[in-house]
Amino acid sequence: MHNLCKIIFRKEKKFFMYKKDFLLKAIILAEGVKGLTSPNPAVGCVIEKNGKIISEGATQKSGCDHAEVVAIKNAKESLKGSTMYVTLEPCINYPLKKTPSCAEKIIESGIKEVIIGMEDPNPNVKGKGIELLKKAGLKVKLADDFKERLFVLNEDFAKFINTGLPFVYLKVAMTLDGNIATIKGDSKWISCEESRKYVHSLRNKVDAILVGVNTVLQDNPELNVRLVEKKKDPTRIVIDPFGKTTENFNVMADNLPTIFVTRKDVSPVFVEKCQRYGKEILQLMTDENGLFSFKEIFTILGNRNISSVMIEGGSRVYKGVLSEKLADKLIIFLAPKLFLGRGVPFLYGDGVAKVIEAIKIKDISVENIGEDILIQGYL
Amino acid sequence: MHNLCKIIFRKEKKFFMYKKDFLLKAIILAEGVKGLTSPNPAVGCVIEKNGKIISEGATQKSGCDHAEVVAIKNAKESLKGSTMYVTLEPCINYPLKKTPSCAEKIIESGIKEVIIGMEDPNPNVKGKGIELLKKAGLKVKLADDFKERLFVLNEDFAKFINTGLPFVYLKVAMTLDGNIATIKGDSKWISCEESRKYVHSLRNKVDAILVGVNTVLQDNPELNVRLVEKKKDPTRIVIDPFGKTTENFNVMADNLPTIFVTRKDVSPVFVEKCQRYGKEILQLMTDENGLFSFKEIFTILGNRNISSVMIEGGSRVYKGVLSEKLADKLIIFLAPKLFLGRGVPFLYGDGVAKVIEAIKIKDISVENIGEDILIQGYL
Repeated sequence: MHNLCKIIFRKEKKFFMYKKDFLLKAIILAEGVKGLTSPNPAVGCVIEKNGKIISEGATQKSGCDHAEVVAIKNAKESLKGSTMYVTLEPCINYPLKKTPSCAEKIIESGIKEVIIGMEDPNPNVKGKGIELLKKAGLKVKLADDFKERLFVLNEDFAKFINTGLPFVYLKVAMTLDGNIATIKGDSKWISCEESRKYVHSLRNKVDAILVGVNTVLQDNPELNVRLVEKKKDPTRIVIDPFGKTTENFNVMADNLPTIFVTRKDVSPVFVEKCQRYGKEILQLMTDENGLFSFKEIFTILGNRNISSVMIEGGSRVYKGVLSEKLADKLIIFLAPKLFLGRGVPFLYGDGVAKVIEAIKIKDISVENIGEDILIQGYL
Repeated sequence: MHNLCKIIFRKEKKFFMYKKDFLLKAIILAEGVKGLTSPNPAVGCVIEKNGKIISEGATQKSGCDHAEVVAIKNAKESLKGSTMYVTLEPCINYPLKKTPSCAEKIIESGIKEVIIGMEDPNPNVKGKGIELLKKAGLKVKLADDFKERLFVLNEDFAKFINTGLPFVYLKVAMTLDGNIATIKGDSKWISCEESRKYVHSLRNKVDAILVGVNTVLQDNPELNVRLVEKKKDPTRIVIDPFGKTTENFNVMADNLPTIFVTRKDVSPVFVEKCQRYGKEILQLMTDENGLFSFKEIFTILGNRNISSVMIEGGSRVYKGVLSEKLADKLIIFLAPKLFLGRGVPFLYGDGVAKVIEAIKIKDISVENIGEDILIQGYL
C-alpha cells in the first residue's frame, strides 16, 4: 500500500510524475549538511534520468557551491531531458549575492523538469526562481509531500533571512515536577542517554550554543559535539556579566570558539584571560536591572551570520529570552522522575498572575525518546 | 489483517477457539460498572453459543450478584455447551464471603468452556477458581489478549484486596513550566476541556476524591461528576486540619457525601457545622510537624471499603501522599502553556539534593488529549 509514486495532472495538461523517493533522498542530503552551510540554507539535490539517480549534491559552506551546482558539476553524463529534485527553490541573482544563480545554471544544463520541495523564504528569491525556470521552458512543480519535514529543515533559515536574527531553540531537560536541577544544583543526569545524544545531534545543526555563567560554574560543561558523529562544534556563547569563568572551566580552557558576553566594566584581568585563551569578549551595556538585552546579543550574532542558536540554560537565561519573546522553538526532554519538591525551576522568578496570561506553545509534538518524553513546540 | 479469531492448540490436544470480540465485549461491560461495584472488582461477562452472544452481565453493587451469575440468570435459553467469557477468574467460596460461589454456579449451568481475562488477584481465589472449574471437567483458558487493558481494569482491586488500602491515583494539571496554579492561586483552567472531561470520567470510576483545604478555599470546587454522564458521585475527602471550610463552599453546602479530616482539637463550631450539613468528620492526630498520616487516613478508608481514591491537589497533599509512598498511579495533564516563572509548584517544599535520589515513574504512557498531553505512570 506504500504509495511510492504520485501522478499529478496539472491544469495545463502537462504530465508530471514525481517520485517521493527522490525528493526524500534530496531532503536527507540537505539534513546531512544542516549546521555546515550557514548563513546559506542547507539544501539537497538529486538529478534523475530514466528513473535512475545520475547525480546528487548538497550545499557547501558559505561562499562555495549550492546543492544544485554541486549536483550539475558531479554529473557524469548528459543532463539533457533529466529531472532535478531540490529541497528549496533555486536561487536567482540579486544584489550582494556571492554565488552564481542556480536557476541559470539549471537552465543551461539541459534539465527539463524541476521538482522543488519548498519556496525559498528569502524575499529576494521567493517565487522568482520558479518564474525564471518556467520562462525558460522548464516544467516546475512544488512538491506536496514532506511538507512538515521541509518546514523544519528550513525554519531557521526562514527566520534569519527575514529578520536578520538567529532562529532560537530553547532546549531544556526537566523532571515531571518541573525542575532542571536539584536544590543543590545537581543536574547530572536528568535526561536519559538517548535524550543527551539527541542534544548532541542538535548541536551539530546549530551555529551557536548559549548558556548562562551559573551553568558553567555549576556543571563545567564542554558544550561540544560528542555522543554522536561530529559535523562541527558550534560557537559557544557564555553570558558572564562579571567575568567569573576561570581557566578551570572547559569553555575557557579548551580550544573551541567561545564568546563571553560581559558588562562593559568587567575586570581587565578577565579581558586579559580571554585574550590569553583565544576567547572573544563582547562587552555590552546592561539595563537598570543589570540584565543584558538578548535582542542586542542576537542582533550582533545575526550580523556575524550566526543563523541559529540553541539556549541550553539556566533558568535566568531561559526566562530572559522568553520574556523578550525571542525564542522560536521549545525542545523539552521530560524525564519520568520526581524530585519530590523544589529544585531549580525551568524558569527563574515569578510567573503570571492569571492563567489567561500564560504563553501558549503552538504546534506541539510529542514522542518517546529512550525513557524520556520529547516535547517540541513553537513560541 | 485484523485478527478477529485466534486458534489455540493446548498441550493436551483439546481444541480451543476464542473470539477476541467476545472478550472485548466482556471488558467493555466491566469498564461500564467500574466505580459502582466496590469493594468487589468490576467484572464483565458474556455467554456465547454457536458463535452468538446468548447472555451477558456485569457485577452489581456490593452484596448483589457478580457478573457471571447475572449472565447465567439473564440467559433465555439453555446454557448447555456454551462458552463463557469473563474478565476475571470466577470466585469460589471462602470464609466471610457474602455472595454464592460463581465457579459453582457456572459448573451447575452446563457451560462447557470458560475464557478468563485475568487471574483473580484475591489470594483467597487466585488460581482456585480455575482449578475448581477444571476439576468439574470444564475447559478453561486464560486469555492472552488485552492484557494491559485488563491489568488497568483490575489494578485498584488488586491493591485493595492485597493490602486493605485503596489504590491511589494522583491527578495533576500542570503547565510546561511545572505549575499547578499561578502565584496568585489561579488555576482555571490550566488544562483543556477534553482533559477536564476525562477527569470527570475518572471520578465516575473511583470511590473517593481527596483534596486539601487550600484547594477548597481557593477554587470552591464541586468535586462531583458533571462533564460526562454521571454513574455516581465519589465520596469527597477534605483534609481540613483547623476546620476552615465554611458553608459558603460547595463541599460543605451541597448534599454529596463528604468527610472532613481535622485535628482532634478542631473547634466545636466546626463539628456542629458538619453535623448540620450532614458531613462526616474524622478527627485525627497530627505528628510533630502538624501533618496527618496518610497511611492512617487510607487505612480508615480501606476499612470502609473505599478501594480507590483520586488525589486532586494541592501541592501539600500531593507531597504528603508521595512522601509516604502511598501513591500508585500518576496522571498528569500537561498543558502547552508557560507561566514564565514561579507559580504554585506541583509539589510543595524542597526536593531531593541529588538527581540519583529522584523518584522514578515507571511504565510511562503518553497520549494527546485535546491540546494537552496526558502522561500516566506508576510509582
